[in-house]
Amino acid sequence: MATPVSGPKTSSQWRLRARPQGRARESDFEWVEEATPELVEGQILVRILYLSLDPTNRIWMEPVDSYLPMLPLGAVMRGVTIGVVEASRQRGFAAGDIVQGLGGWQSYYAGDAAGWSKLPRIPGVPLTAFFGAMGHIGFSAYFGLMDIGQPKAGETLVVSAAGGAVGSLAGQMGKIAGCRVVGITGSDEKCEWIQRDLGFDAAVNYKKENLSEALERACPKGIDIDFENVGGAVMDAVLGCLNLGARVVLCGLISQYNAAGPVAGPSNFIHILGRRARVQGFLVTDFSSRFGEATAQIVQWMQQGTLKYRIDLVDGLHEAPKALNRLFDGGNTGKLVVKVSDEPGK
Amino acid sequence: MATPVSGPKTSSQWRLRARPQGRARESDFEWVEEATPELVEGQILVRILYLSLDPTNRIWMEPVDSYLPMLPLGAVMRGVTIGVVEASRQRGFAAGDIVQGLGGWQSYYAGDAAGWSKLPRIPGVPLTAFFGAMGHIGFSAYFGLMDIGQPKAGETLVVSAAGGAVGSLAGQMGKIAGCRVVGITGSDEKCEWIQRDLGFDAAVNYKKENLSEALERACPKGIDIDFENVGGAVMDAVLGCLNLGARVVLCGLISQYNAAGPVAGPSNFIHILGRRARVQGFLVTDFSSRFGEATAQIVQWMQQGTLKYRIDLVDGLHEAPKALNRLFDGGNTGKLVVKVSDEPGK
Repeated sequence: MATPVSGPKTSSQWRLRARPQGRARESDFEWVEEATPELVEGQILVRILYLSLDPTNRIWMEPVDSYLPMLPLGAVMRGVTIGVVEASRQRGFAAGDIVQGLGGWQSYYAGDAAGWSKLPRIPGVPLTAFFGAMGHIGFSAYFGLMDIGQPKAGETLVVSAAGGAVGSLAGQMGKIAGCRVVGITGSDEKCEWIQRDLGFDAAVNYKKENLSEALERACPKGIDIDFENVGGAVMDAVLGCLNLGARVVLCGLISQYNAAGPVAGPSNFIHILGRRARVQGFLVTDFSSRFGEATAQIVQWMQQGTLKYRIDLVDGLHEAPKALNRLFDGGNTGKLVVKVSDEPGK
Repeated sequence: MATPVSGPKTSSQWRLRARPQGRARESDFEWVEEATPELVEGQILVRILYLSLDPTNRIWMEPVDSYLPMLPLGAVMRGVTIGVVEASRQRGFAAGDIVQGLGGWQSYYAGDAAGWSKLPRIPGVPLTAFFGAMGHIGFSAYFGLMDIGQPKAGETLVVSAAGGAVGSLAGQMGKIAGCRVVGITGSDEKCEWIQRDLGFDAAVNYKKENLSEALERACPKGIDIDFENVGGAVMDAVLGCLNLGARVVLCGLISQYNAAGPVAGPSNFIHILGRRARVQGFLVTDFSSRFGEATAQIVQWMQQGTLKYRIDLVDGLHEAPKALNRLFDGGNTGKLVVKVSDEPGK
């Protein structure tokens, strides 16, 4: 049943003002306050609770179609959100429902219900977990490692951006699969976290050490799987240590998303031939028919305590542009989330 | 039964004198005439008939272990050869046997029989075919395309170095699999050959045309499979046109083998992520347990006339160093072979 429509709200919005050159700056966005439009049939009004910040957001700002259509200048910045329905003209959605969808960088979403899904309330599981282990982040780690990486017990797995949202989960899943797991991060604090709290076997701070030498020490038997989130010089060092038949799971290339022009590719590319390695890019939605399987497995691991995750919560939508760059600075630990408004009942 | 030993022969040899910087020069080799040693138990004396020249020969000159151990300075240059046994102290080999093995760049091989195999004489099939369609060249095309490329009817296959030994076969196999096949070569003569004689649907001369534009014209539905023999700028242009789920069969990177230092990787590497492509390096010996299958299939195609090949025959061992560079100049059409001495009975 459709819910009676509430009156218009004032939505605070970050709109895309300019295409960034390199890193996104706050001046590439415009802060706008605007009344939400009247809902028409098939639409919902959502008060945004949480906004997910992800490296791919930077790709969405480019003037090209990617796996999603190009975002036009002047549009509300695209973003994955969780919110509470305040009004609905779409059967199946009612006021009070907790929903997830591309709500964008704004405090209220008023638009089509298509693409939105309702989230269950699971006791003891915070809503933000649906941005993390129980959402696309967790599914990326799961399908990337298990399906593309095909880990075998005793193999060596290297994870770049290992203190990040996907990396920290992929590494723990590698341990579950019986691998020796080595994480690459950009701070001692993260190196300590992934080893002490997440059970990685070794960690390398690429900002402090010669990465190739450190990898040789940390991976005495070479590298069988590279769960690649970074690209550039970090990936190059890893490619230099690949074993015969290695798999490179291309989950992200965060070092390249801010680049203004063509980027030099990996100079160790020839090792992909020499070591007869397989490099495979993927997008988590390629596996959408199996999200149920992943959810069941991940919930089980979380309940067993074998899979831990951390939410890095930023307070206030106004902080979103600045917070986005923490993903590229290595400034976040775990999943970066912006709190936009209070959850109902809190 | 072992064959009585013949007397020593004078073997003309090209020995590796210096590690090439960039392209191999004739001065990197030394022409030596040396008496063959007395055979000991387990050895054979082979008069070399044909020497195969392949891009990988250049890799063998580098001061590193590759898929074969590093070749020491002063050693006879490594090379795949076909020859006739003149003397044998190894059970199973007898004078007159036609054999194939790593005989090296010399007129006589005297050494261990291990690694040598006897070749059948098939009426109508020249011995040099065992360097080509019925040898590692043909097997590389077969397993690379069929197993790694996994062609489906209606897909678009692009083959670089399409006028070369492997490329010309891989493209024809793509036609057999029902693909639209586009070849990249470096001369109009080769473009004409692969279209008119080999049945390629289109051909691009990368030396005359803007490769990216030409590929867009030749591949209106994008590229599903890249059978990659070249690397560098040629591969980069192909990567720019990949379709979702494309496969890059990494068979060779001939543009890089002469490089003195690290080589810039593909600047379109990020498309491997965005198009969710798979890049896989391989070595034909990974498939050695299935060479019988490949031989049977290739012989059948040759007998049906659906698979054609060309031998580019160079006369005389003395020409080998100069001839090697034709592989990197694009100066050969089809399989490059040096004739070292006359076949028995010719």
